[in-house]
Amino acid sequence: MSDPVTFINVIEVDPSRQQEVIDVLVEGMEKAISQRPGFISATLLASVDKTRVVNIALWESAEGLQATQRDAEAAAYARRAAAIARPGPGIYTVIGEFSA
Amino acid sequence: MSDPVTFINVIEVDPSRQQEVIDVLVEGMEKAISQRPGFISATLLASVDKTRVVNIALWESAEGLQATQRDAEAAAYARRAAAIARPGPGIYTVIGEFSA
Repeated sequence: MSDPVTFINVIEVDPSRQQEVIDVLVEGMEKAISQRPGFISATLLASVDKTRVVNIALWESAEGLQATQRDAEAAAYARRAAAIARPGPGIYTVIGEFSA
Repeated sequence: MSDPVTFINVIEVDPSRQQEVIDVLVEGMEKAISQRPGFISATLLASVDKTRVVNIALWESAEGLQATQRDAEAAAYARRAAAIARPGPGIYTVIGEFSA
């Protein structure tokens, strides 16, 4: 077992279209991403100023994530989001965790 | 009790300076932010492509977060990070959580 991989997509959007992006991402999560092998969990967050949507997901491995990025159904949702916003996807390493 | 507030800072950085930004943020977390009233917890993540650092923090309220942003010591760390990178701070609402 390798450690889980953290995928973060920082999506910049015109405030007038934030809700549209959210709708595409929620549908993509429910119908495609959450069914994919290796998917563990994800949290979708919307900035209160309406300029960003952030998706933070955990995958069992980079391979499962990359296979999903190549999958036709998942890629169709990514294209729908990219048509109305500016995605900034990446794989991240946890540097530190802090608590009060 | 109000719900916790999620603060996310998406920091864009030249890959050659990602480690410098991480060092400033870790020091700021340990010496200033984590001691502030209302701070609950935070996770720092670094993109593997070295172009971003993301700070995801939970606060008891927006007031505690905003008081910290005005605090001289915390603001000094924010200025040091902004001198070498491009911060993108914001308050977020959780839209959805998904699991396999």
